[in-house]
Amino acid sequence: MASHADDDKVTYTRLIQRLPSSAPFVGPEALERKSGVKFVLRLGANESAFGPSPRAVEAMREATPRVAWYADPEAYDLRGVIAHHTGASIESIQIGAGIDELLGVAVRLFVEPGNATVASLGAYPTFAFHATGYGATVERIPYKDDRNDLDALAEAARRTNARLVYLANPDNPSGSWRTGAEIAAFVDSLPHHCTLLLDEAYLEFAPLVAHTPIPFAHPQVMRFRTFSKAYGMAGARIGYTIAAPETIRELDKIRLHFGVNLVAQVGAQAALADQNYLAAVVAEVARGRRQYEALASDFGLTALPSVTNFVTIDVGGVDRARATVAALADAGVFIRMPGAPPLDRCIRVTVGAQSDRDEFERIFRDIWPSIASK
Amino acid sequence: MASHADDDKVTYTRLIQRLPSSAPFVGPEALERKSGVKFVLRLGANESAFGPSPRAVEAMREATPRVAWYADPEAYDLRGVIAHHTGASIESIQIGAGIDELLGVAVRLFVEPGNATVASLGAYPTFAFHATGYGATVERIPYKDDRNDLDALAEAARRTNARLVYLANPDNPSGSWRTGAEIAAFVDSLPHHCTLLLDEAYLEFAPLVAHTPIPFAHPQVMRFRTFSKAYGMAGARIGYTIAAPETIRELDKIRLHFGVNLVAQVGAQAALADQNYLAAVVAEVARGRRQYEALASDFGLTALPSVTNFVTIDVGGVDRARATVAALADAGVFIRMPGAPPLDRCIRVTVGAQSDRDEFERIFRDIWPSIASK
Repeated sequence: MASHADDDKVTYTRLIQRLPSSAPFVGPEALERKSGVKFVLRLGANESAFGPSPRAVEAMREATPRVAWYADPEAYDLRGVIAHHTGASIESIQIGAGIDELLGVAVRLFVEPGNATVASLGAYPTFAFHATGYGATVERIPYKDDRNDLDALAEAARRTNARLVYLANPDNPSGSWRTGAEIAAFVDSLPHHCTLLLDEAYLEFAPLVAHTPIPFAHPQVMRFRTFSKAYGMAGARIGYTIAAPETIRELDKIRLHFGVNLVAQVGAQAALADQNYLAAVVAEVARGRRQYEALASDFGLTALPSVTNFVTIDVGGVDRARATVAALADAGVFIRMPGAPPLDRCIRVTVGAQSDRDEFERIFRDIWPSIASK
Repeated sequence: MASHADDDKVTYTRLIQRLPSSAPFVGPEALERKSGVKFVLRLGANESAFGPSPRAVEAMREATPRVAWYADPEAYDLRGVIAHHTGASIESIQIGAGIDELLGVAVRLFVEPGNATVASLGAYPTFAFHATGYGATVERIPYKDDRNDLDALAEAARRTNARLVYLANPDNPSGSWRTGAEIAAFVDSLPHHCTLLLDEAYLEFAPLVAHTPIPFAHPQVMRFRTFSKAYGMAGARIGYTIAAPETIRELDKIRLHFGVNLVAQVGAQAALADQNYLAAVVAEVARGRRQYEALASDFGLTALPSVTNFVTIDVGGVDRARATVAALADAGVFIRMPGAPPLDRCIRVTVGAQSDRDEFERIFRDIWPSIASK
């Protein structure tokens, strides 16, 4: 076999070579491997300790032997159920392996290398991972009053001639929300060649006023929803986008047609059919938020208003936030903190089951005084 | 809300706008919806009627409630098992949602718009789907003697200054194979800036001589393997690539880190651990190939030599092949035919279970005489 001297090295694309080594998240498993400490409480990734509907679990168990067969690449049945559930037409819906995958395909649809995109500074990092990965720049707009600053985001979109704006509503990691009417006005204020990627991963937890009246087929809006959060199926990797039929047709030109697990599709249909279970989860998560808010209040800390399955607590500064995350990790509790100011003065804690919350509360009460005294 | 006149239309990238509407495959479900006839025998997608190992099914059933949690984005445990099984280092391995997803990421690593790639004319279409989708050209080299023409592929790679050559060994849709030594010599004949994407989806069915002695860390080779075929988990969407550690590090810059279903990862580990089951499937598939070969021979037809889980039968011309596919579809049997000459004189039939094969044989004996007489 020929030897390969340095000057013969395989050449990756210029874009790939310029990219830094990065991943959107370091998983808790990698943290465990590094520290040698196993987490006993996993409250850092906004997963649902309540799990999927028991009916969805049963449907998935029953469907397991069918993994011998490829799923329908058009996901016709599941899209039909989603259409019925949302009111969007089936031509406006496509599924993917979670919002993460769909955001990547959306970036490919609209962004050429060198194009600008806009997102909040410290927003969910997977959008920027994809945008950067496809050669776009990301203009980052700081949160204002701990919420997405819609005016500044729109101004940045106009100023940079952005092709895309990414916005999560409800927002992660702040837990805040804008009204659907505000989102609609925001879209109206965008340049005509700018599309809003509207991440609605946490929408099921939010009040109806957070649902936007923008028509599903609006040409400048792609919505993203998931079975990972309220539906409790993060590990199944399944979500969907709703957009104009033309956008879905363009997406079909490039998306991975055989990318979503068949059993996950069966589970998603069963999960959608059990809205009573969803409502119970949402109610229990609301109770859990109040528990965390009360805990924060006990120590004179402020919990940011949240309509999600997590609570972001202002602990008074980035050093304290880091110390809190570290002390909790030492005690076997996995949480995260927002990555950028002004939210990096906070920790973000997922609402777990009652026993998880009680255990978190016990440990937090134990570690907090020494952090507060420094 | 603002109206959107035609000149205000959202602009997709120039590349997307130029792409034709296409999908790698039209699924049997879409064919059923169009014809109104349900397939009773599914022998067109080289799925495994034998399914996954019962131990894998049990492991997946047991793991189902764990879909509430994200999988380890580094897939450390599964990659460790694959490393143990293959002898490749864990740094040389990355998983994805089937070979389909991994081919797309590989194309992104190496191809800029306008670059050339090379593949056999009529090869597995998903490579070309991705290459075209990322703006590359695909130089297509006809099969020679119903096998991949290695000399012509290498010549085309040199002539076009190709960044990638795609090659399946064993090959789909011909069922043929090259020896591992031939593949190694082929790689040596490629330009230093050309990488071989070696699709080994059917390798488990092939004799040892088809395994290539190319080192796993060779800088110009990415291997692709899957749990979809011999391991019987097509619907689970899980496969892996083996390549130089540097290539895996570059791939990690852009791959979907949370794309593979957690239960599929559990199932893949259990499937790898049950090599006795795999051996039984491979032996039964070999018996099934002989049954199809004997059937073809009964009618004076030639079955191409196959070391896969399908048999490609020369029915004497493209019109006869189309008529056979259509007649079988009318009888409720889903098969496919190769898409390009010279192989489009053939039909391709997946080796099913004994009862499937008997039913296929009965129906084929019924429909063939009228096709042969035309």
